[in-house]
Amino acid sequence: MDRPRHQGMARNTNMRWRLPLVCLLWEAAMIVLFGVFVRFGAEADAHWEEEKREMNLTSDMENDFYFRYPSFQDVHVMIFVGFGFLMTFLKRYGFGAVGFNFLLAAFGIQWALLMQGWFHSFKDGKILIGVENLINADFCVGSVCIAFGAILGKTSPIQLLVMTLFQVTLFSVNEYILLNLLHVKDAGGSMTIHTFGAYFGLTVTRVLYRPNLEQSKDKQGSVYHSDLFAMIGTLYLWMYWPSFNSAISDHGDAQHRSAINTYCSLAACVLTTMAFSSMLQKKGKLDMVHIQNATLAGGVAVGTSAEMMLTPYGSLIVGSISGIVSTVGYVYFTPFLESRLHIQDTCGIHNLHAMPGLIGGIVGAITAAAATEDVYGKEGFIKAFDFTGVYQTRTPSIQGGFQAAGIVVSLLMAFAGGAIVGGILKLPIWGDAAAENCFEDDIYWEVPEDEESDVYHMHNPAKAASP
Amino acid sequence: MDRPRHQGMARNTNMRWRLPLVCLLWEAAMIVLFGVFVRFGAEADAHWEEEKREMNLTSDMENDFYFRYPSFQDVHVMIFVGFGFLMTFLKRYGFGAVGFNFLLAAFGIQWALLMQGWFHSFKDGKILIGVENLINADFCVGSVCIAFGAILGKTSPIQLLVMTLFQVTLFSVNEYILLNLLHVKDAGGSMTIHTFGAYFGLTVTRVLYRPNLEQSKDKQGSVYHSDLFAMIGTLYLWMYWPSFNSAISDHGDAQHRSAINTYCSLAACVLTTMAFSSMLQKKGKLDMVHIQNATLAGGVAVGTSAEMMLTPYGSLIVGSISGIVSTVGYVYFTPFLESRLHIQDTCGIHNLHAMPGLIGGIVGAITAAAATEDVYGKEGFIKAFDFTGVYQTRTPSIQGGFQAAGIVVSLLMAFAGGAIVGGILKLPIWGDAAAENCFEDDIYWEVPEDEESDVYHMHNPAKAASP
Amino acid sequence: MDRPRHQGMARNTNMRWRLPLVCLLWEAAMIVLFGVFVRFGAEADAHWEEEKREMNLTSDMENDFYFRYPSFQDVHVMIFVGFGFLMTFLKRYGFGAVGFNFLLAAFGIQWALLMQGWFHSFKDGKILIGVENLINADFCVGSVCIAFGAILGKTSPIQLLVMTLFQVTLFSVNEYILLNLLHVKDAGGSMTIHTFGAYFGLTVTRVLYRPNLEQSKDKQGSVYHSDLFAMIGTLYLWMYWPSFNSAISDHGDAQHRSAINTYCSLAACVLTTMAFSSMLQKKGKLDMVHIQNATLAGGVAVGTSAEMMLTPYGSLIVGSISGIVSTVGYVYFTPFLESRLHIQDTCGIHNLHAMPGLIGGIVGAITAAAATEDVYGKEGFIKAFDFTGVYQTRTPSIQGGFQAAGIVVSLLMAFAGGAIVGGILKLPIWGDAAAENCFEDDIYWEVPEDEESDVYHMHNPAKAASP
Repeated sequence: MDRPRHQGMARNTNMRWRLPLVCLLWEAAMIVLFGVFVRFGAEADAHWEEEKREMNLTSDMENDFYFRYPSFQDVHVMIFVGFGFLMTFLKRYGFGAVGFNFLLAAFGIQWALLMQGWFHSFKDGKILIGVENLINADFCVGSVCIAFGAILGKTSPIQLLVMTLFQVTLFSVNEYILLNLLHVKDAGGSMTIHTFGAYFGLTVTRVLYRPNLEQSKDKQGSVYHSDLFAMIGTLYLWMYWPSFNSAISDHGDAQHRSAINTYCSLAACVLTTMAFSSMLQKKGKLDMVHIQNATLAGGVAVGTSAEMMLTPYGSLIVGSISGIVSTVGYVYFTPFLESRLHIQDTCGIHNLHAMPGLIGGIVGAITAAAATEDVYGKEGFIKAFDFTGVYQTRTPSIQGGFQAAGIVVSLLMAFAGGAIVGGILKLPIWGDAAAENCFEDDIYWEVPEDEESDVYHMHNPAKAASP
Repeated sequence: MDRPRHQGMARNTNMRWRLPLVCLLWEAAMIVLFGVFVRFGAEADAHWEEEKREMNLTSDMENDFYFRYPSFQDVHVMIFVGFGFLMTFLKRYGFGAVGFNFLLAAFGIQWALLMQGWFHSFKDGKILIGVENLINADFCVGSVCIAFGAILGKTSPIQLLVMTLFQVTLFSVNEYILLNLLHVKDAGGSMTIHTFGAYFGLTVTRVLYRPNLEQSKDKQGSVYHSDLFAMIGTLYLWMYWPSFNSAISDHGDAQHRSAINTYCSLAACVLTTMAFSSMLQKKGKLDMVHIQNATLAGGVAVGTSAEMMLTPYGSLIVGSISGIVSTVGYVYFTPFLESRLHIQDTCGIHNLHAMPGLIGGIVGAITAAAATEDVYGKEGFIKAFDFTGVYQTRTPSIQGGFQAAGIVVSLLMAFAGGAIVGGILKLPIWGDAAAENCFEDDIYWEVPEDEESDVYHMHNPAKAASP
Repeated sequence: MDRPRHQGMARNTNMRWRLPLVCLLWEAAMIVLFGVFVRFGAEADAHWEEEKREMNLTSDMENDFYFRYPSFQDVHVMIFVGFGFLMTFLKRYGFGAVGFNFLLAAFGIQWALLMQGWFHSFKDGKILIGVENLINADFCVGSVCIAFGAILGKTSPIQLLVMTLFQVTLFSVNEYILLNLLHVKDAGGSMTIHTFGAYFGLTVTRVLYRPNLEQSKDKQGSVYHSDLFAMIGTLYLWMYWPSFNSAISDHGDAQHRSAINTYCSLAACVLTTMAFSSMLQKKGKLDMVHIQNATLAGGVAVGTSAEMMLTPYGSLIVGSISGIVSTVGYVYFTPFLESRLHIQDTCGIHNLHAMPGLIGGIVGAITAAAATEDVYGKEGFIKAFDFTGVYQTRTPSIQGGFQAAGIVVSLLMAFAGGAIVGGILKLPIWGDAAAENCFEDDIYWEVPEDEESDVYHMHNPAKAASP
């Protein structure tokens, strides 16, 4: 623990005052802002009894809580266990993966409740929150977890908090532009969460390019059990993705349909991932990196279209393609991005979120443009795309165009935002580690000593006695 | 990684072209078949708005999604994390356990949607799917996961896919015979899932008998942390089993009752398992193999009867007995099966699924035969056993007889099917490993090198510097 | 495995007859008592069809199952995976942590169904159970899991079962006094579960004080992967705590509000925990012990008030404070309790449950005392505090007083009960280990041999060949 380390000249990674200061000041700010702005929405307020009477609701079951809470909990697991454990694959960075993800997400959901609240739930000077706000806050933070994947192991916790602050802000602006100004559908967030989050993170890691990162190359791999820990993350993301894509869809058939489409897409994605993982290796062996990540691309790629009438076979096609694209990305694109474009992408979010996110946006645009009253039914058509009020005259093809515009806007926001935030994070005040200390928990965490010898002694008392 | 291995003369375990070919061709077949046959059911279709009006439904809550989706997600976790991690107990086969389970289940659910769809959800040339189909597909694949437990570590991924193809097909036929022709109740699948799946797998492993398997005996055990990974699987199976047994029961009291019965049975099972695990060892120490497996027998053993009026104390009795039977099985039957009957059962599915499954079928037959209008109420009696239409005149005792017949049919299907499929899997074209390479991830997976030394160096820089 | 051990003179830790005897006799008692007393409640009984008609219910959705089952499953995961894995942080006690937690909880829920049933669900000589009873049984056992945390590694499984028997009994009495006699609100159990459970456990461990415990000091720490296993427990507790605090709240707004308040409190708690964990270490490094535990204090501390109109910013304040108190507790109080008061608290439950539980009780009393008809609405006010019948005339300030009394009663019950039960557990007949064998799975479990060398050989065949 106390051994000297080559930490470069001016690197001071001691977080003792900086991290507490940021955490405590920001939490205090949250308390003040929540105090001024945030109140319970009608369905969570004790006045609900009267509300119910006014709205002629005969059952407590009509409370949105019962429509969305199970999906909320699944999404919650994806953000904290899913993303957290997916990133534990690094042999020496498990604490950082799970712990920093925990930290940034816990801060991010508070800030997201405010930012998204101002845009979407603001009424008479107050933000009125309910279970849907909790889901949306988790979604917003999901985009930060994605970006975290690109810079995993190379940043200090303060940098992560700073990035979270800005990214949540930009996410909310981008989301407002897409959902409210462009009137785009994106329930599972192919554009708002994945495309935006991934290209934002890739831009940040490009700006933070570390030319000497090969100094910590020995720590960039996995060990046997760290790969199994990562599979916990993978499987929870995979299993609960149907909840993710359906969590904020309209009640009834839309939620039901989203879950089915996502289930189908993910199932297909596993098979094409396995196929290409084996095919692209000389000896035909499967690579855990692909299984841990590319199997999830099918969930990303139906994020926009899952609540539409994509149909089960459409979902299989999208899932199959995204598994292939993602696996090929890990084998060919990631090395290219690193060597040629100087984009060091620790978890390969370009393959898991960026490309499948783009696919998702495009599939969404096509599916929307191809919608007909015949397929959706007259009422279902209007409901599915919310063609009411000022949007009464929108046609499917126009909607498709706006969906495509949503992709472009998300990309622009991601590049511009990522460049600015990357520049801020490059300031030499945040306490990030030197290149040779990247991917190492020991910098920011108390790490238990002597794992080996301990376990060893445990079952070999004889040797323990005579070391 | 690159060290030479004794792989027998003709063993070629390289999957490079075979596995991708199977995965891609089969996925393409799924896409075509889904394109021709599978569409959204009424409750997942955008026409639901009109459907609702026609059916006089006043609330979106009446959509089956809200009755079953939380249970579906729990079942989904059982299949992928539950079974996957339960099998990670082997010291060197964690990737194969989780990864191959992932592969076969992802393929299996697609094929099950088709097979079960043709039998149960076929209307006007289309299979109309909803959340209940997803649950049933997961159930069907559960029986394959069970069979996988018997051959764990001894088969190639292609063999597993071939087995899945056939087993899902046979499962669906058997299920159709039981549920539709015999009009048998089996909501939690004691017969259709556990008895069928387990005896199918045991027959397959008997046909695939490897006389030299003791060559890999050193790899058939666990290590400390692999036992903890397996406990993740155990606990998720245990905790969510009430959802499993209630997932497709009738809305209302039947789902409620199934969950309670299963909860009680599983609680009792833990105590008798612990008791016998300790009692059957000379030093009274508990054996993780029993805790990981036999504690779950209580869920299997109320699979048929949980939705009936088994009553909480009846559940305690069934759970207690099944825990004892299962633990005794691990201690005495498994060695006997291997040495005398040449049935090499890696995970001991005979103890966890076969015997408890039989108990479950028998308990179901008795509980059905003992049913009275007094206990169920006049309407409840008819609803519980669906004694309507052509079954209007069925009496409880006749129902009990049919339930018993269901056990016999499941056994026959399992033996016959397992023998045929075992014969197919024995063909020397599937790339399975030689006996001395069984239970070893290295054959089919890129395994990270040097776990030890890496971790060692991490916390012992001094030694790392001077090796 | 068979090596001789210094187990003190008279220590016989062989469980072979004692543990099976206790398990089997007690399970037999459960069966008899369930047979005499426990039946399905109306909503789980097959007579529900008629019940529905009588109660004019138009939908199966009105069955309490659909209001509470998803929350129940989350609570179930917290008890078995949450508490179980949280305690796997010890390097050599993972089997005991997960396995004994499994054993005591499986017994405890059965006994709790009876005890709580007699007090709360007794009608015409029968205990009528439904999903709410399952949740309450899990809650009750939660208090035992908390107490287990104080004595983790120092007790035999029989002692744990004996403690469970008594603690569940006392819990039920205490709960009855609070909820029925004092008419106190405590949906998330700050008082009944956390305050009672923690001070009970602390008193027990005080009575069982082991002066020579430093003999096993080398085993009281963690290793790298055991800390990651513990994080599985932490995150599941953290994520599902909103379900815990809302699981038995009134249908509708109260459940909704509880979840939101808990979500907010926990998010804030993470930030203050991280801040103080870094601040209180010389080098500013984060300590996994704090992250694993203190981040959860926010859930404990809103246990009483979550269903009240605490408001989101109130929750942030409570969560922030409890994270600070808990982290400070780990750094300063735990060593003090051990050295001065001879309270050996393995998991630091004083910091995670005792102090935050007290905070929770106090916050609940204040929030209740501050309630107004303006904030709750006329009907909401009466419904929230159940000011009906004989409690019609209770005012908020009187309610606050009774809430405060509930804290005192819980403390007294905990101290008195813990002292008595501790005395019973001190009898030299239960087979607990000698001080030097504490925190060691090997005493009660078959532990796989030679983890090291096995894994080592796996990936280093060269070295394996020439050791």
